Amino acid sequence: MGEAIQDHYPDHLAWCYGCGRLNEHGHHVRTIWDGDETVAVFQPGPYHIAIPGYVYGGLLASLIDCHGTGTAAAAAERALTTAGETAETPRFLTASLHVDYLKPTPLGPTLELRGRIKEMKGRKVVVEITLSTEGQVCVRGEVVAVQIPDHYLQSLMK
Amino acid sequence: MGEAIQDHYPDHLAWCYGCGRLNEHGHHVRTIWDGDETVAVFQPGPYHIAIPGYVYGGLLASLIDCHGTGTAAAAAERALTTAGETAETPRFLTASLHVDYLKPTPLGPTLELRGRIKEMKGRKVVVEITLSTEGQVCVRGEVVAVQIPDHYLQSLMK
Repeated sequence: MGEAIQDHYPDHLAWCYGCGRLNEHGHHVRTIWDGDETVAVFQPGPYHIAIPGYVYGGLLASLIDCHGTGTAAAAAERALTTAGETAETPRFLTASLHVDYLKPTPLGPTLELRGRIKEMKGRKVVVEITLSTEGQVCVRGEVVAVQIPDHYLQSLMK
Repeated sequence: MGEAIQDHYPDHLAWCYGCGRLNEHGHHVRTIWDGDETVAVFQPGPYHIAIPGYVYGGLLASLIDCHGTGTAAAAAERALTTAGETAETPRFLTASLHVDYLKPTPLGPTLELRGRIKEMKGRKVVVEITLSTEGQVCVRGEVVAVQIPDHYLQSLMK
């Protein structure tokens, strides 16, 4: 596995239950570039059940959420790098989340999430995400992510 | 606490990670009537972090998802009862989920979810949900829930 955007989050912002590397209870979603897309993989536990045999939809929404904010951060970081700037990796929160469950997601195979930037404007990034098992898209999501304001970050550092 | 709709789910459909009474790892969301609204409460764990001090958005989406399908089931059950029918409590899956994070949800207080039926048409029920802490609405959600087809249920019983 390559380096994930979540590896770049500063320690005080690395506690997210979905994707924080420092949260020992969490899912540890890792968002990695693959060309112009981002990818993350996740292996559900046998207890992540919706109805028997299928993955719990709340988990799928959670993975889409974190891969969405991760993709937004990765895109913002890439834009900074392209511009020759060396600021800290931006960190995003979710303003809105939309999930369409196209078909039940079988419980067992590894899940693959792919993210694409739909829109970047100021501090807002819109990310489209597909979630697949064994090459079949089961879920589509859209995350509207907003970069955390600086005054918030400063209050967290106190 | 009164009786929850999830108490009426048959055993083979009571394994959901979000709301199944038989899933020992799960959240055990319990959806209860309060007049024409439904209510559920949830106490996040100290590890359900987004950024420090605030609740993980994926958990909030998960709670909205399960309270949404629970509210749909409760409304369908009430409609059956009103019609004098005695069929098994209908069970719903989520077709789509939309969540607007209006403000960060503080981590610590108990969360209260309230559901209202927006639309019932055939096997489809649309549920609007608010999620509050200490009287402040932090998140709004909408769940489009669809009653599980009978042939699916029969295949699960095998």
